[in-house]
Amino acid sequence: MPATLLETPEAVVCSSLSARFAAVRAQTEHLCDPLATEDYVVQAMEDVSPTKWHLAHTTWFWETFVLAEYAEGYELHDARYPFLFNSYYVQAGERHCRAQRGYLSRPTVQEVFAYRHAVTEAMQDFLAGFDERQRPDVADVIEIGLHHEQQHQELMLTDLKYVFSVNPLRPVYRSRPPEESADPGPLAWVEQAPGVTPIGFEAPEAETTRERFHFDNEAPRHRVYLEPFALADRLVTAGEMMYFVEDGGYARPEFWLSEGWATAQEEGWTCPFYWEPPGVNSGTWEHFTLAGMRPIDPHEPVTHVSFYEADAFARWADLSGFASGARLASEAEWEAASRTVWNGTTADGTAPGSYVDRGRLHPAPAPEAGWVAGGDGAPAAPALRQMFGEVWQWTESAYRPFPGYRAAPGALGEYNGKFMSNKMVLRGGSVATPQSHIRPTYRNFFPLDATWQFTGIRLAKSL
Amino acid sequence: MPATLLETPEAVVCSSLSARFAAVRAQTEHLCDPLATEDYVVQAMEDVSPTKWHLAHTTWFWETFVLAEYAEGYELHDARYPFLFNSYYVQAGERHCRAQRGYLSRPTVQEVFAYRHAVTEAMQDFLAGFDERQRPDVADVIEIGLHHEQQHQELMLTDLKYVFSVNPLRPVYRSRPPEESADPGPLAWVEQAPGVTPIGFEAPEAETTRERFHFDNEAPRHRVYLEPFALADRLVTAGEMMYFVEDGGYARPEFWLSEGWATAQEEGWTCPFYWEPPGVNSGTWEHFTLAGMRPIDPHEPVTHVSFYEADAFARWADLSGFASGARLASEAEWEAASRTVWNGTTADGTAPGSYVDRGRLHPAPAPEAGWVAGGDGAPAAPALRQMFGEVWQWTESAYRPFPGYRAAPGALGEYNGKFMSNKMVLRGGSVATPQSHIRPTYRNFFPLDATWQFTGIRLAKSL
Amino acid sequence: MPATLLETPEAVVCSSLSARFAAVRAQTEHLCDPLATEDYVVQAMEDVSPTKWHLAHTTWFWETFVLAEYAEGYELHDARYPFLFNSYYVQAGERHCRAQRGYLSRPTVQEVFAYRHAVTEAMQDFLAGFDERQRPDVADVIEIGLHHEQQHQELMLTDLKYVFSVNPLRPVYRSRPPEESADPGPLAWVEQAPGVTPIGFEAPEAETTRERFHFDNEAPRHRVYLEPFALADRLVTAGEMMYFVEDGGYARPEFWLSEGWATAQEEGWTCPFYWEPPGVNSGTWEHFTLAGMRPIDPHEPVTHVSFYEADAFARWADLSGFASGARLASEAEWEAASRTVWNGTTADGTAPGSYVDRGRLHPAPAPEAGWVAGGDGAPAAPALRQMFGEVWQWTESAYRPFPGYRAAPGALGEYNGKFMSNKMVLRGGSVATPQSHIRPTYRNFFPLDATWQFTGIRLAKSL
Amino acid sequence: MPATLLETPEAVVCSSLSARFAAVRAQTEHLCDPLATEDYVVQAMEDVSPTKWHLAHTTWFWETFVLAEYAEGYELHDARYPFLFNSYYVQAGERHCRAQRGYLSRPTVQEVFAYRHAVTEAMQDFLAGFDERQRPDVADVIEIGLHHEQQHQELMLTDLKYVFSVNPLRPVYRSRPPEESADPGPLAWVEQAPGVTPIGFEAPEAETTRERFHFDNEAPRHRVYLEPFALADRLVTAGEMMYFVEDGGYARPEFWLSEGWATAQEEGWTCPFYWEPPGVNSGTWEHFTLAGMRPIDPHEPVTHVSFYEADAFARWADLSGFASGARLASEAEWEAASRTVWNGTTADGTAPGSYVDRGRLHPAPAPEAGWVAGGDGAPAAPALRQMFGEVWQWTESAYRPFPGYRAAPGALGEYNGKFMSNKMVLRGGSVATPQSHIRPTYRNFFPLDATWQFTGIRLAKSL
Repeated sequence: MPATLLETPEAVVCSSLSARFAAVRAQTEHLCDPLATEDYVVQAMEDVSPTKWHLAHTTWFWETFVLAEYAEGYELHDARYPFLFNSYYVQAGERHCRAQRGYLSRPTVQEVFAYRHAVTEAMQDFLAGFDERQRPDVADVIEIGLHHEQQHQELMLTDLKYVFSVNPLRPVYRSRPPEESADPGPLAWVEQAPGVTPIGFEAPEAETTRERFHFDNEAPRHRVYLEPFALADRLVTAGEMMYFVEDGGYARPEFWLSEGWATAQEEGWTCPFYWEPPGVNSGTWEHFTLAGMRPIDPHEPVTHVSFYEADAFARWADLSGFASGARLASEAEWEAASRTVWNGTTADGTAPGSYVDRGRLHPAPAPEAGWVAGGDGAPAAPALRQMFGEVWQWTESAYRPFPGYRAAPGALGEYNGKFMSNKMVLRGGSVATPQSHIRPTYRNFFPLDATWQFTGIRLAKSL
Repeated sequence: MPATLLETPEAVVCSSLSARFAAVRAQTEHLCDPLATEDYVVQAMEDVSPTKWHLAHTTWFWETFVLAEYAEGYELHDARYPFLFNSYYVQAGERHCRAQRGYLSRPTVQEVFAYRHAVTEAMQDFLAGFDERQRPDVADVIEIGLHHEQQHQELMLTDLKYVFSVNPLRPVYRSRPPEESADPGPLAWVEQAPGVTPIGFEAPEAETTRERFHFDNEAPRHRVYLEPFALADRLVTAGEMMYFVEDGGYARPEFWLSEGWATAQEEGWTCPFYWEPPGVNSGTWEHFTLAGMRPIDPHEPVTHVSFYEADAFARWADLSGFASGARLASEAEWEAASRTVWNGTTADGTAPGSYVDRGRLHPAPAPEAGWVAGGDGAPAAPALRQMFGEVWQWTESAYRPFPGYRAAPGALGEYNGKFMSNKMVLRGGSVATPQSHIRPTYRNFFPLDATWQFTGIRLAKSL
Repeated sequence: MPATLLETPEAVVCSSLSARFAAVRAQTEHLCDPLATEDYVVQAMEDVSPTKWHLAHTTWFWETFVLAEYAEGYELHDARYPFLFNSYYVQAGERHCRAQRGYLSRPTVQEVFAYRHAVTEAMQDFLAGFDERQRPDVADVIEIGLHHEQQHQELMLTDLKYVFSVNPLRPVYRSRPPEESADPGPLAWVEQAPGVTPIGFEAPEAETTRERFHFDNEAPRHRVYLEPFALADRLVTAGEMMYFVEDGGYARPEFWLSEGWATAQEEGWTCPFYWEPPGVNSGTWEHFTLAGMRPIDPHEPVTHVSFYEADAFARWADLSGFASGARLASEAEWEAASRTVWNGTTADGTAPGSYVDRGRLHPAPAPEAGWVAGGDGAPAAPALRQMFGEVWQWTESAYRPFPGYRAAPGALGEYNGKFMSNKMVLRGGSVATPQSHIRPTYRNFFPLDATWQFTGIRLAKSL
Repeated sequence: MPATLLETPEAVVCSSLSARFAAVRAQTEHLCDPLATEDYVVQAMEDVSPTKWHLAHTTWFWETFVLAEYAEGYELHDARYPFLFNSYYVQAGERHCRAQRGYLSRPTVQEVFAYRHAVTEAMQDFLAGFDERQRPDVADVIEIGLHHEQQHQELMLTDLKYVFSVNPLRPVYRSRPPEESADPGPLAWVEQAPGVTPIGFEAPEAETTRERFHFDNEAPRHRVYLEPFALADRLVTAGEMMYFVEDGGYARPEFWLSEGWATAQEEGWTCPFYWEPPGVNSGTWEHFTLAGMRPIDPHEPVTHVSFYEADAFARWADLSGFASGARLASEAEWEAASRTVWNGTTADGTAPGSYVDRGRLHPAPAPEAGWVAGGDGAPAAPALRQMFGEVWQWTESAYRPFPGYRAAPGALGEYNGKFMSNKMVLRGGSVATPQSHIRPTYRNFFPLDATWQFTGIRLAKSL
């Protein structure tokens, strides 16, 4: 696979709706380049869907919410597919059991690609005559479709990683050359003043469909009072997580939430997911990556930790003195702090990060520490690093609606709102996220024991 | 059982630590008066502990955290009991499996009472020579012990209700005469202005141990910005819940959180817990109460609903037009609003309510609607009713630490903090709660599917 | 409890139906003498019923199958009890869930005894005017009732043993003085000639109701061809089982049936049920008995082993050379061999054994080896020991109908026939079985993983 | 797929070991002709293995038990494969979890075929220089390998049928033209005289490796006494099963074993597996076949019934008067009766039947009833039909060892012996069985609730 295959085409960022549609659809398929036919079929746990299913489900989304609604005379590619490829939209009709997606050998991969291509073509015909200013409502649905497909691009990678990991042959998705890394240095605290601050998405004045796009759960913008706090300037590293492991972190209930401890015991957790201790297959700590089994680089951010582990790590950091007062950030704290980075450090208005675009498919060690000049002769303060595009950062906030939240009407209203229980918010995007997909207000969410996503830890503390 | 048996002795409210200790211990035992020996033994589901266990566990608490720590020369009543009667304090030693509390026929009820009496006596000896001003740290632990035992008084009632309910003979705990009730009238909205407000417990200046008491999860006091909102002036009634049932509320996924819907399907929910539709055992809707099977009074507050049902009811109320914009209150909203009632409407500084003290053991219909005079010639506004002592009111807030929260060190630090996942906050106390136990800042918490507590619904909306 | 309390009154063996009824009912209640009220209530696993339930169920049996059917004008003691105390007779009406028998605190023990006494009295009235020769059909049902109640006497003891065993306080049901025991010597083989032999119950010519009694599964008598085989002259001892343990028997899959191995792994079996290795609570191997925790006497028969363990022990005995060719006996082999003992060695027509009658409540070491004189100058052969009344002996035969078997019509036809799947036959009775209850043709049956009965091992081999 | 593809080459029956090896290996691969790559991967329940796994496991068998043992200098094709493709041979090393065979996308189908071809070639080299008379021990292992692979050919078909059936697209494995069928007429009873009869495999005198082949569970030959009985002359038809369905057979517990009833309730059984009632997808009863959804032909044998259903049908047949006295046959009864058919009716020493060889892949209605002339002027008796090659016939016999049975030493001793618990014996072979694979003494075995094999019902009765 050439290095550029995973780079998001420019089109996604800056072109017309039609060009962006073509680019996103192509990117989904590019991600399949390394796969054998058999790799598309397997579902190794309920949360993990077969690649084949992702390819078809994203296609069903366009067919159901755009073509069947708005494209005159459109006929379903196959009348049996909506039942198979609806994920969870109750109002869009009956659907196949999620846990049994891996039981379906048919339609074949070839048939699924035929479905994709037929729908892509019908969409392109539709978009050829479509004016988004005339039909902003339809443009909004298309915009959701683009972001929906990008979300599934991320899931395709995390799901394939899981499927490959349970295979004793440990297949490689994409090889990556060995690399040297530098110690990112001790973590520093970036302080934030207290006060009322707006949280949530606010559409810019002169908006395009793309500019105003956000998921419904990012709104409405509302005010939050933040007590004084500080955020760690970088992510927790794998090496720091190893301190926790070596200090008995997984065997000492005093660091854990009660349900976290119960989960850790039931599941036999003794280290982060995908880690293998020395002696199993090699003499050092290794972990499974999309490039196969690799030695763990202590300088890279720890990833594939659950909320329970992130929370336990923070409590350990506090109680052990590694970082007194440490806890996870609230999502409002995270968002408020991230705005400075988002607006300030890069020319194109985004913060640096690996994202899926770089093709590493694995989080990178923090760049050298930076400093932000204090205004009015104040001393320089450390700058936030690794806020975007390395690992999703668990916040301490439960995933609940913002005050005044209303789900969209109809089936698309099921997109986010109905999942607002027993989950925590994550922020920042990961190495599997397209860069064009992320925002400071972006709220990702997973159950507290989820580990198969690229999830990591940033510490915070109250001042 | 005489009517006064469930009334909290004055001692609990206003006397010395020693007198309050005696009163709380006696009250626990008074609750057992209606029981046969066999009733003390049964555990009908994991969450529900045998009465015998509650009696012994509260005793173990005094023995472990006071006598063994501070009473010179104290010897354990039975060295095998700590293993049996420690609930979940990992740092206090190994313990018996929670799910198997109902497997223990020994120690017998008589032996458990002997244990109680021995520990009560030892505590009284200890308290006789104890000066709380000299040892405020010990006084704090004793204060926790009193509130801990009051919490178990509440659980004894809810657990017995559950145990009796699964028995086809449907035993009566305490009979209650039939009563007429009046329609509480349509619900009205009590509006609240936006702004920054303090939330959480603040100790009064001239404090006694009792005055400064609060659980660690109620602190620290901190600032919250509240967008404008309104609270319903009374609880949702059983009759209103019946509208939801009759409108297909339990069969329409659009009202439910995804996990709530899954739970409702798996558990076969078609109405609130303890309800029986007409035709099962009588011609009308009935429900199981501590006074046995009773017709459902449509004017009384609905109770024994899970968070999922409370949330679904609110969404139905919004979408059906029954109460447009309805949702549950956040815990900050609830607390801010409740302060006016707590300080203003009753002579003794508490709001009216049934509590366990009245001996009804079942929530009462709302009293006649009241009005609060507007200042400066503004029109009168409806007053909040039923804020305390009827049913625990589900808030929309996940049970998470307040900013700056620190668990107490040692085993008592496990009291609250380690349960801060996958639960929602409830406020206000219920008909099983001692009146002297409640505060506006009191944070109760249960999983989202829990129904065996006296839990109900108060609506709110954003303005 | 006086030593004689567990001895079966003579009445059970040799008196009128009425006297035998009174004796059996009294014996059931005598077994409760050592109990506290709380002990009657607990169900510590699904297979184990509360004593209270056994007392009521056996009473329901008389009420349902005798009084309600044949006693003119009889009215149910409590119309709600049949639902509560029917065990599994589908044709006798709806019934309470077996797994929830321990959830019922009511009716109380006192109420259950009142039920018993009322039904006993009604039965005695009925029997006063009853002539079994006039109504042999009714006499047969009464005879079943007597044996049914004796079966529950056995279950009351095994169930209480289980309930007491899971209690960390390890209560004693009946104390037993320490005793010396003698080595029973190496096991010897008792050979049997091949040929066609009748198997199953045959009623004697001049029969009484009692003489002709047998469960339907013991009939019809039919012919079986037995290839030449030998039976071990005594039971496998606890000491021999310890060889198996020490030789890694529980860790070597080659000795086990596949499902047995899976069960042993899932359940974590490393020794027989109720055994505790040195170091847990004492310096030697101990086991839980109805007399509390006791050191294991290596000379006594091993008991509380599952079929899987009995089968694995036999395979180990074969492969290790401990007893080459060893296997378990088929039920036909066991029955054919047992007839010689049953008819020959005791004056009263029964073989010696502990049974419940001796009040040991624990299997006894084998008596000194005996020899049977060979006819016609042939050498003496070893005599079979411990065939009856020590431990139920697992046979290698699945519990299936004899050729020509027909279940009785009606609800009583559910007594035995519907359980003929996934179970193995056991023969011989145990220390919890009344001596008057057993016969050589008696077929007991349990699932292959059952361990809470007094079950043991006798080896056999093909010649 | 040409009609001949499923016909067993002559070579399997009558040629050299080498030719038979080639033919069996080729036949396995021919069965894959209709498959898409994706079809090889799926495991839709634990009992059902992916086709890919069957292809590799049968190859591993040759590699492990022949090449690695006896082929000088043989090196494993891939050292990681034995872990992946060992099924349950504990003594042959660690192995991959059975329930997770469907989680492996790699090795790919192409790699598995490469494995097959490499091992086939190595075997052919080995066989080229192999003289079975010199090494009868090795010849015996090769013979087992051939029959082992034939067993997996059968499983490939039943497993694919299951996988296709759970797919809403209902793929067709092999289409089959519609056909007319004739009513096979009422069932007649074929009587058998009582007496001692030999049961189990006996090697012919002048034996070849093939002639003496049998699985260890068919030996030793031993004597059994059979009471007089009769066997139904043909299989129970689908039409007769429909009588049972329509008579409430699935809703009346009196016909069912207790565990069968519990299974039927838990699984929601209301008709045989693969049946769909009118109204689901068509106006008539249909069932899923390897030719897709088809109307049920009432004349064809019912198939895919569990033992519980077969047993319940027989009890219904008895109690309803459809066939008074009906029950299932014991395996000894079946074997004794089958010998007459096996020796008498076909030129080549086998009875007629569909087998896999005919390529129907679905059981055929009974041919016209035949009559056997009585000797010595006795009246003609009905002849047994459909004894072989249509559906496996559940017997009433638990799968247990024959008297004197010894498992082979080593890993191959795990082939049959360790499964002798909680299973019933089936006889006769099915439409998925190669004709060259079957014998009258052949003992198949499955758990009592298994339905995914071609399993059916033949009635018997005691005379």
